[in-house]
Amino acid sequence: MFRIRKAVITAAGPHQERLPLQRFVDLDGSEKTALQIVVEEVLSAGVEEICLVVRNGSHEAYREAAGEHARSLVFVEQSEPRGYGEALHRAAKFVGDEPFVHLVSDHLYVSRQAQRCAEQLVRAACDEQCAVSAVQPTRESMLQYYGAIGGSPVTGKPGYYQVESVLEKPTPTTAEQHLIVPGLRAGHYLCLFGMHVLTPAVMDLLGQMIAAARSDSGPIMLSPALAQVAQRERYLALELDGARYNIGVKYGMFTAQMALALNGCDREEILTRLVELLCAR
Amino acid sequence: MFRIRKAVITAAGPHQERLPLQRFVDLDGSEKTALQIVVEEVLSAGVEEICLVVRNGSHEAYREAAGEHARSLVFVEQSEPRGYGEALHRAAKFVGDEPFVHLVSDHLYVSRQAQRCAEQLVRAACDEQCAVSAVQPTRESMLQYYGAIGGSPVTGKPGYYQVESVLEKPTPTTAEQHLIVPGLRAGHYLCLFGMHVLTPAVMDLLGQMIAAARSDSGPIMLSPALAQVAQRERYLALELDGARYNIGVKYGMFTAQMALALNGCDREEILTRLVELLCAR
Repeated sequence: MFRIRKAVITAAGPHQERLPLQRFVDLDGSEKTALQIVVEEVLSAGVEEICLVVRNGSHEAYREAAGEHARSLVFVEQSEPRGYGEALHRAAKFVGDEPFVHLVSDHLYVSRQAQRCAEQLVRAACDEQCAVSAVQPTRESMLQYYGAIGGSPVTGKPGYYQVESVLEKPTPTTAEQHLIVPGLRAGHYLCLFGMHVLTPAVMDLLGQMIAAARSDSGPIMLSPALAQVAQRERYLALELDGARYNIGVKYGMFTAQMALALNGCDREEILTRLVELLCAR
Repeated sequence: MFRIRKAVITAAGPHQERLPLQRFVDLDGSEKTALQIVVEEVLSAGVEEICLVVRNGSHEAYREAAGEHARSLVFVEQSEPRGYGEALHRAAKFVGDEPFVHLVSDHLYVSRQAQRCAEQLVRAACDEQCAVSAVQPTRESMLQYYGAIGGSPVTGKPGYYQVESVLEKPTPTTAEQHLIVPGLRAGHYLCLFGMHVLTPAVMDLLGQMIAAARSDSGPIMLSPALAQVAQRERYLALELDGARYNIGVKYGMFTAQMALALNGCDREEILTRLVELLCAR
């Protein structure tokens, strides 16, 4: 049986620290922190327990930023900045032997349908009984910000891909050699969406990578572990019916807020303001 | 001689606490906290010393949010939430017997000319050798958010008004009876912009109000003191060539960011994103 009860949200990156505490107006018109919005995203998918991996000493700020959801959260600390993969591995004990949802904390998601993005992904993983990473066709010029997958479309299942390789922030040349996916628009690659359903296998693989790392090795990344998952078990990628907004880049918070506002209950008001501002110049 | 060397920024309001710490991309395309942007606004006007009035225990967060400007700041604490006027009065000693600029910390300003808003205002005060409050013609429906002035246009000086009364958040009925200003569009009033050049007289008046207040009186507001300033000395209001954005209201940060982006060096990029988002829906 493939049932998803747990989620791991990583918020330990050097630039991520403040982002989940930033405030937005959500689709429903109410003010929330980015953390609240991300937590509601996973709760909407039926998750019951959430583990938040944070930097040392950030507990209290996060607990406050989570508001009423604080009671659904378990905190784990990453004491040293040893990379995204090492941060995720801190939740290995929390995950145990169950599949889990994993989200990063510096992205917000806007679905184009009634089901939220995390709900679409969890449903897909339960249907397919395997690990599934959400992906978004992304312009070559943006490869520097994301992990990207190579693979082939699953026959008869539009939007699904069999993952064959995963590379972290590939150069355009590397991407062209290894990550061409048939059927995508020219110059586009399937970049990770920051949202996955993973099996405990990824924790084993990360654990091996951490054990093998020398003190002078670079940070432990997630993409190499995902690449190994693809060799070990059935692992799919899925284009969700929605978009992700990375709030950690320049104008990222602004763009995310604009997307929420234009897709939410205050669309008319925001369009009016926009026209006023464009005219007032 | 009327020379402005000092500025007082209030940041002690119950809802203001987090706002100056929020991050924006400024007109020049660089990321700053709201506090940094406000501090640069007053520095651009030739101010040399800035006093920040904060709630107890907020020093460190503000010092960090001020970045390289921290060394220009003197902190004063408001130990109890006794109102905006009382917060300003905490800087009486800092101000001494000099005129000073006063800004609130939850507004951002976008000038429509090369001179920033604070610079326009300080220049006007130095020319006129008197207290000057910046005002913006504002729709009746927004009166609930601002102080508003009544007065009459100064002959031969477009945009200048002789202040006769100041009322805090008047009802539309009160405004219609007391704050009609000849020459404004119907249904519009001159609301405070959150930016003033004031004389030490306002500190004396606030001091008297504080001394006369009983423990069960409401908060000490600034508007009644400004109304008394108008009875005591020459006091003008000036429509600046720019706009203010209150970041404390719903969508306030978003609207301020949009105004900065549409008036700054990244205008083209932001317009492109906007069109993409409008099309992607």
